[in-house]
Amino acid sequence: MTNPQLSPNFYAVIPAGGVGSRLWPISRPEHPKFLHDLTGAGSSLLQQTYDRLVEFLPAASILVVTGEAHGAAVAAQLPNLQGSRLLLEPSPKDSTAAIALAAAVLARENANAIIGSFAADHLIGDQSAFATAVAQAVSVAETGLVVTIGITPTHASTAFGYIQAGSALAGFETARAVTAFVEKPDAKRASEFLATGEYFWNAGMFVVRASVLLDLLRETEPELVKTVEQLAEVWHTDARAEALSTLWPALPKVAIDYSLAEPAAARGLVAVVPATFAWRDLGDWAAVSEELGEPERLTVIGSADVASIDSTGFVLSTQNRPISVVGLEDVVVIDTEHGLLVTTKASAQGVKAASEHFSKANADDKQAE
Amino acid sequence: MTNPQLSPNFYAVIPAGGVGSRLWPISRPEHPKFLHDLTGAGSSLLQQTYDRLVEFLPAASILVVTGEAHGAAVAAQLPNLQGSRLLLEPSPKDSTAAIALAAAVLARENANAIIGSFAADHLIGDQSAFATAVAQAVSVAETGLVVTIGITPTHASTAFGYIQAGSALAGFETARAVTAFVEKPDAKRASEFLATGEYFWNAGMFVVRASVLLDLLRETEPELVKTVEQLAEVWHTDARAEALSTLWPALPKVAIDYSLAEPAAARGLVAVVPATFAWRDLGDWAAVSEELGEPERLTVIGSADVASIDSTGFVLSTQNRPISVVGLEDVVVIDTEHGLLVTTKASAQGVKAASEHFSKANADDKQAE
Repeated sequence: MTNPQLSPNFYAVIPAGGVGSRLWPISRPEHPKFLHDLTGAGSSLLQQTYDRLVEFLPAASILVVTGEAHGAAVAAQLPNLQGSRLLLEPSPKDSTAAIALAAAVLARENANAIIGSFAADHLIGDQSAFATAVAQAVSVAETGLVVTIGITPTHASTAFGYIQAGSALAGFETARAVTAFVEKPDAKRASEFLATGEYFWNAGMFVVRASVLLDLLRETEPELVKTVEQLAEVWHTDARAEALSTLWPALPKVAIDYSLAEPAAARGLVAVVPATFAWRDLGDWAAVSEELGEPERLTVIGSADVASIDSTGFVLSTQNRPISVVGLEDVVVIDTEHGLLVTTKASAQGVKAASEHFSKANADDKQAE
Repeated sequence: MTNPQLSPNFYAVIPAGGVGSRLWPISRPEHPKFLHDLTGAGSSLLQQTYDRLVEFLPAASILVVTGEAHGAAVAAQLPNLQGSRLLLEPSPKDSTAAIALAAAVLARENANAIIGSFAADHLIGDQSAFATAVAQAVSVAETGLVVTIGITPTHASTAFGYIQAGSALAGFETARAVTAFVEKPDAKRASEFLATGEYFWNAGMFVVRASVLLDLLRETEPELVKTVEQLAEVWHTDARAEALSTLWPALPKVAIDYSLAEPAAARGLVAVVPATFAWRDLGDWAAVSEELGEPERLTVIGSADVASIDSTGFVLSTQNRPISVVGLEDVVVIDTEHGLLVTTKASAQGVKAASEHFSKANADDKQAE
């Protein structure tokens, strides 16, 4: 089902990168977070992201940018993704390179292209509110602004960056000018932000004309833009592989918040469309536990036979063997062929250190080979 | 190394039975507790028991009584056990049948046989103190008494039965008459027992002339004695299998504490030799944790790569995959191909309920087949 009101110039770009080391052992460098179903939804986070977009966009308007190592897995998970819409990066270069490459490729196809960037690993609760917000963001982006979809905070989180909204944008229902992007605050500032009602969580959802994005980036990252435009020129030709091998390694690694959003906001070129949908970044196992929302029992994801004796929290198993959890509260047990994690909701942030322990052990093994 | 002072009429019997359901998933009906190395000692509890005895007894003097289902595993673990010294029971019939069968078989070989019964799944700390206690028990048993080796309590345990000791036995170093066997007490009585200094833990270690054992049992369990003597008569012949299939099913299931120890004590026929060695019955994972004795860190048994972040307790793994434990105190993680257990020292008794959950599930599966 496509949305008749949505501009045919609009394309969705899904940058699928990042390891998600706090979600070890499900998320690993060779099979990262977005490829997994973390909540027992029946499809991976990437598939949920794609399905959400294909509800109101034609398949030809949806692109995925991911690492070469994940190309086969992404293609297998998204059978409707068109081959030419899967852009593979030889190595990770952070979000600016990924999104600018997609913008450059699309701008050559369609001078009026508007692109929206949507993370591959976020959950969104209300499909129709999401589609409405995107449609409004596209309308605002047509005026030449960089438009972000801001999440209305539900609590004083210190885990997210914030978007400070200013005055309402004339002619649009709920869009407001953006005064500034603010990095993750401490608890005190987060409470202050929440109290003002002027701040939104930055979920990394941007909608902008491809030409505007490239023009703005040309000021902050001129070499990067030059490179992605050279790549775009040969993207659909036999020269792509050679160009990638020559040009890609030199690309700077920079997050699009720094290269685009913050400088553009400082110049008054950014707007925010407040989201009215529930949104969650499954950043760690505590967030997954929150998403499951069953604090009084031990939730089981997967088909393992689990005996829960006086326990709460959740078990995620990809294995078939029986599991017993006895006498633990808010426990998190992740049972996979690649590793076993036992932690609690309160300690979920510490999983990053464990993941790093094993990454280091792997690196040591490789060096020893 | 055999002990020159020990009577050549002495034989050790190891009844290897019991499931150990609190030690799931390591201990399972098809591969019970005694076949496992629960503490990272490098040999199973059965092997440790056998090794402890073969230090001062010839191999021909050590018998194991176990279920037919475990015969191959026992033989594989104990290559020095003589084939004729492995007595296999068609079905479990509790300790009286197992020990009486061994007594009857040995009594036919040697009219002066003295047998000692030693559980297959207990830990003993001091080999030489153990050998000394056995030697003294054998000396006392030669006088015709039933002799138990009593464990000096280290705390007011409610997990063990107790032996109440009376006056010293004339002519022996430390042996005392036994007034009574007492079943597991409540906490108050256990404290009282400890305070008197007259009580020992009953570890099920008995030493007695085979003929005395059979005569005493003839009074409490006459049919049982008749049956095991019939079996002993044909044990080393081709008629054994048929006799077993005919006679074994009717044997009563009765613990030797009830059939022998308590009635004999009431008649003043039991003595106790106080043990001076450390002893532990690994009844649950809390006991295993105590035995490991490293309360300040996360102990790892097995070769898995374990990342411990702010955790104490222990991990036992028979798998090769990495394990991470983050932010848990006194945790118990048992990772095997047959199942995964996550609990705490304080909740270890609850594992029995989990084990029963899976036994029931298995039984349901079998019925459905």
